[in-house]
Amino acid sequence: MKRLSALLVLASLAFAAAPARADEGMWTFDAFPSAKVKAAYGFAPSQAWLDHVRRSVARIPGCSSSFVSPQGLLLTNHHCALGCVAALSSKEHNYAEAGFYAEKLEDEVACPNFEALRLDSISDVTAAMDAATKGKTGSARVDASRAKQRELTTACSKPPAVRCDLVVLYHGAVSKLYKYDRSTDVRLVFAPEERIAQFGGDPDNFNFPRYDLDMSLLRAYKDGKPLETTDYLKWNPQGTKDGDLVFVAGHPGSTQRELTVSQLTYLRDVSFPRVIPALAEWRGILEEYQMIGPEERRTTDQTLFFLDNAYKVQVGHEQALLEPDFFGQKVAEERALRVAIAKRPEMQKRYGRAWDDLAAVQRKKAELALTQQYVAGGPQGALWGAARGLVRIANPLPNAPEAAGQGADAARRRLLSPVPIQPGREELQMAFWAKRLREDLGADDPFVKKVLGSQSPQEWAHVLVTTTKLSDLNYRRSLLDGGKAAIDASDDPLVKAVASIDADARAAQRRYEDEVAGPEGKAAQDVARARFAVYGTSTYPDATFTLRLSYGAVKGFTSARGPVASYTKVGGLYDRATGRDPFRLPKRLIDAKGSLDPNVPMNLSSTNDITGGNSGSPLIDKDGRVVGLAFDGNIYSLGGEYGFDPVRNRTVSVDSRAMGLALTSVYKAQRIAVELGL
Amino acid sequence: MKRLSALLVLASLAFAAAPARADEGMWTFDAFPSAKVKAAYGFAPSQAWLDHVRRSVARIPGCSSSFVSPQGLLLTNHHCALGCVAALSSKEHNYAEAGFYAEKLEDEVACPNFEALRLDSISDVTAAMDAATKGKTGSARVDASRAKQRELTTACSKPPAVRCDLVVLYHGAVSKLYKYDRSTDVRLVFAPEERIAQFGGDPDNFNFPRYDLDMSLLRAYKDGKPLETTDYLKWNPQGTKDGDLVFVAGHPGSTQRELTVSQLTYLRDVSFPRVIPALAEWRGILEEYQMIGPEERRTTDQTLFFLDNAYKVQVGHEQALLEPDFFGQKVAEERALRVAIAKRPEMQKRYGRAWDDLAAVQRKKAELALTQQYVAGGPQGALWGAARGLVRIANPLPNAPEAAGQGADAARRRLLSPVPIQPGREELQMAFWAKRLREDLGADDPFVKKVLGSQSPQEWAHVLVTTTKLSDLNYRRSLLDGGKAAIDASDDPLVKAVASIDADARAAQRRYEDEVAGPEGKAAQDVARARFAVYGTSTYPDATFTLRLSYGAVKGFTSARGPVASYTKVGGLYDRATGRDPFRLPKRLIDAKGSLDPNVPMNLSSTNDITGGNSGSPLIDKDGRVVGLAFDGNIYSLGGEYGFDPVRNRTVSVDSRAMGLALTSVYKAQRIAVELGL
Repeated sequence: MKRLSALLVLASLAFAAAPARADEGMWTFDAFPSAKVKAAYGFAPSQAWLDHVRRSVARIPGCSSSFVSPQGLLLTNHHCALGCVAALSSKEHNYAEAGFYAEKLEDEVACPNFEALRLDSISDVTAAMDAATKGKTGSARVDASRAKQRELTTACSKPPAVRCDLVVLYHGAVSKLYKYDRSTDVRLVFAPEERIAQFGGDPDNFNFPRYDLDMSLLRAYKDGKPLETTDYLKWNPQGTKDGDLVFVAGHPGSTQRELTVSQLTYLRDVSFPRVIPALAEWRGILEEYQMIGPEERRTTDQTLFFLDNAYKVQVGHEQALLEPDFFGQKVAEERALRVAIAKRPEMQKRYGRAWDDLAAVQRKKAELALTQQYVAGGPQGALWGAARGLVRIANPLPNAPEAAGQGADAARRRLLSPVPIQPGREELQMAFWAKRLREDLGADDPFVKKVLGSQSPQEWAHVLVTTTKLSDLNYRRSLLDGGKAAIDASDDPLVKAVASIDADARAAQRRYEDEVAGPEGKAAQDVARARFAVYGTSTYPDATFTLRLSYGAVKGFTSARGPVASYTKVGGLYDRATGRDPFRLPKRLIDAKGSLDPNVPMNLSSTNDITGGNSGSPLIDKDGRVVGLAFDGNIYSLGGEYGFDPVRNRTVSVDSRAMGLALTSVYKAQRIAVELGL
Repeated sequence: MKRLSALLVLASLAFAAAPARADEGMWTFDAFPSAKVKAAYGFAPSQAWLDHVRRSVARIPGCSSSFVSPQGLLLTNHHCALGCVAALSSKEHNYAEAGFYAEKLEDEVACPNFEALRLDSISDVTAAMDAATKGKTGSARVDASRAKQRELTTACSKPPAVRCDLVVLYHGAVSKLYKYDRSTDVRLVFAPEERIAQFGGDPDNFNFPRYDLDMSLLRAYKDGKPLETTDYLKWNPQGTKDGDLVFVAGHPGSTQRELTVSQLTYLRDVSFPRVIPALAEWRGILEEYQMIGPEERRTTDQTLFFLDNAYKVQVGHEQALLEPDFFGQKVAEERALRVAIAKRPEMQKRYGRAWDDLAAVQRKKAELALTQQYVAGGPQGALWGAARGLVRIANPLPNAPEAAGQGADAARRRLLSPVPIQPGREELQMAFWAKRLREDLGADDPFVKKVLGSQSPQEWAHVLVTTTKLSDLNYRRSLLDGGKAAIDASDDPLVKAVASIDADARAAQRRYEDEVAGPEGKAAQDVARARFAVYGTSTYPDATFTLRLSYGAVKGFTSARGPVASYTKVGGLYDRATGRDPFRLPKRLIDAKGSLDPNVPMNLSSTNDITGGNSGSPLIDKDGRVVGLAFDGNIYSLGGEYGFDPVRNRTVSVDSRAMGLALTSVYKAQRIAVELGL
């Protein structure tokens, strides 16, 4: 009951104006509201507690994780390690299907292109950033900001072990430098079968009650040996009980709670009506492609998994904005802030125009949306990305991300990734892009003609994918090492195709920065400062895929169907299994049924305020021990993109007791059980 | 530039409040504004002109057509005969691919399940309908209306040759009885290759300039011989020139220009965000299914063609409602009407509540939307439809459409249709329905469990489609003839599946009628009467797939890219051909190139106000002759669903000169050319 649920939850929301309400907030570690937690739960994390947790948590690509042993063992979700599992799999060994366990330390296998980042320190660089962009507009502002960012991060970083990121909080009102310890040798230790990790699949995704063993274990290595660390979280095999205070430490990716009404209107009326049907069509294509055979299924499983998830998320976001009461609340809040600013002439002079500026930018954004998507953006996929990376590295623009510093490192790293490229999926993806390009811009558009010539979209994709040699890592390396001369001389059809339209792409990007990104950045910063001016700085910033801490309690909720208890149990997993995907249990679980206590808690629900990117975050008790592993939210959590609903928004985690039971009794992972102290 | 186009056209709209503006309107033949046409164009159609045109035009399934010879020759679009072309095709003879031409009269082949309806007379039955529903609400109102409708149409009809329909105009404020002469023996005479009929395919659909030969010829038969008639339109081989007055007589299917703001809001915020992504996903599935092979392509080509069209239409409608200026205009118009009503106490008492009633109904409609779609509705497709038809005919509810009269005839006819059923497509369709059922209602929903049991959606569809015998016409006939006893005793899995949930389906339908359809019908009728009370009855009703006449002039327009001339030419077709679908010419056209005058007009644009259902309508000059064949509108016509834009909304037709040239010089259809007087 997706639609009804969204309507019902939102009708019950009453969003806080400025001070965050009970359990709300994804707080930075340097501004955690300990006093507030103390008042609500009788416990305040000490500075030592905060420092220890901060150092025990690591960011990994797209997700969060935590150290759970002194030998660098990392706990995260299965879906966070799925990229590694898929990259290590082949037609012969499908670890998503069969699961993976390294019986011995030597069996642990390196995950291609993985890294783990531990936050070491945070410093404020707002003044430096402000000075760099002062008085600048459009792409000049984007350039100045990027140049200062590069200067600050380069000065701070010591590759490969120390990485520094500029973190823009409150839409630019505050800038911080985050310094990370970085591990680039991360290996796969344990992953259960995807069928139990994602039991219930897409139908159960963002639902609770839930029965997933969405866990995996990785290990960080240093100099070829397990990374030794004193900053790790101990395991609590007893878990939690209803009402217990729990924390989630991790890296929420993005929220949009600070957006203005015109920005939200753009999302609701321009962006979602275009993006969601495109995702839906792509989903239909992939679903049908998977019917061809097991190899087609294997090579697109990961893509479809994340697509299904993204689709549900986007629909949830759209539904939230379509709810009139909720949107009305946003309108009312904005009006109140503007009235407050208008009463202070100095503030009004400084910030009063910002909302109208943002509204004007949204109109320009709508006008440039298709150009930005197709001309500046281009197709998704590894092959096109590699070709574009090579062309741009060979012909760098001074201010482009790939020109120097971290951006250049990342671009080289992507190009030299050993992850196998799947030509079937690449062709499907490029053909779909080209089809939509022609559909959205029209067959008579000059850019469309330049790309396709007289070819059909399918033909264009097929010819490029089957004739390029960029699937070959050595070939990519030779072009990269050969520099501009090699690219200019290359007769690789995909390199030539990218090169032939790259000037258009860069011009479109520049125009977008001049007319949209630059002005929007400036005005959004002003709105944030206006908010500080009226409400103070005691609130948390929108999520930015950087380390945050949220607090809450183990607690159920009431759905459209009635009350939902906080815990599910192992027995419920077996009750729910139908023998058919996605409700089909792997053989190991079926075999183990008789030996498992059906009353062991499986998944649990808590009031923590998290979002995508928090996947893999530990659920921590007040003693700093692991009591669970966050992997999802309930359906009411999707509206959390724009505001927190304490009544029904819930974090969904795997219970530490279920993880322990699985490792010891199902997977017989004795080596790891001992390491965890189980 | 779909989005931009929609934005630009709508920004330029200033919708008429009550009196229709220049060239606006889909007028009924009994209330055509001849004086207005006279004032604008210096010509007024006489009653004889109107009667002749009315009798020369025929409704066919989903489309319009016109008699163009005294021997019952019918001109319509290729896409209107596509159902017949596909039904007559097989793996060995693909007439969509190769085209069809009956060299001799004996070669003309009957189109399964086709009919042609000529409007004989219109009589007013508003008073009778009002009396029948007076004081009734909810499903009682729906029942009473249906019963009176059945009584009136049954008394008037003389099957099979005379059919009468109740036509509800102005949302029930006016009811008329339309009496038709009916031909049920309609045969295929000529259809070109689909590739030239739909040249440019989906990318060019709803675009102009255009180069399509979207024509076909059918013939109505009576007693096994060509139908003789004096009511037919003569052919004008000279065609038109810029600015000429032209009429379109046909059957526009549906417009929503009379909807209130709450009804439009429902469409914009509830309906489209759900319907459009579902269409998009289904489109992706079909596109990928077609890649499997030519037989998969052949058996789904027609489905995908109409799906692509529907998708573009729905997106165009949504974009129109998302345009703030346009929506604001609708809000302002409604406010003005309500203010006018509020000033007259008698009117206010009678109609004042109607808008609020409609708003309340929309909330209920949103609440029941999923139940209505899935429980009351069920899957699309011929097999499910046949099973449901059999179950319901065997167990009729007194007021159900299939219980008696025309509804019963139509239900029997559908069941006994000889159109071949394509199991692959049926399975795809049912699996997609079942997947979405579980996705939208949730895996724990009791109805979902009742339908699927422990099966996956794919498995459910596969088992039903591969085990049912309902693809066999004789088996369907035996079950139909066997009545309730045969259905109750049937062990056909699909019949049993339908029977097991039919009580749920009927209960859901009943609830919908009680809480939505009934109250909405009543309130919408009140709004229409309020509008009459304030503005008089001099405007046209929303389209209802009944005969209408629109007038206008041959005229180009200005698109986002600049001015667009009224005519395209045959030479342009060859310039546009790339050799790749959908811009690939059939061999006959390539071969004929040298012999064709490139300056012959191909397609043309005119200001007539038409919509879907008008496909196949003749474009008529003031002498009542065929000068073209309407087959589409330009992109700006999609907003016509909610209001007419005289500046850019254009009808797109095949020029009579191109049709003549094709018949004589490309297809060498001498027999037909002579019959048309070419």
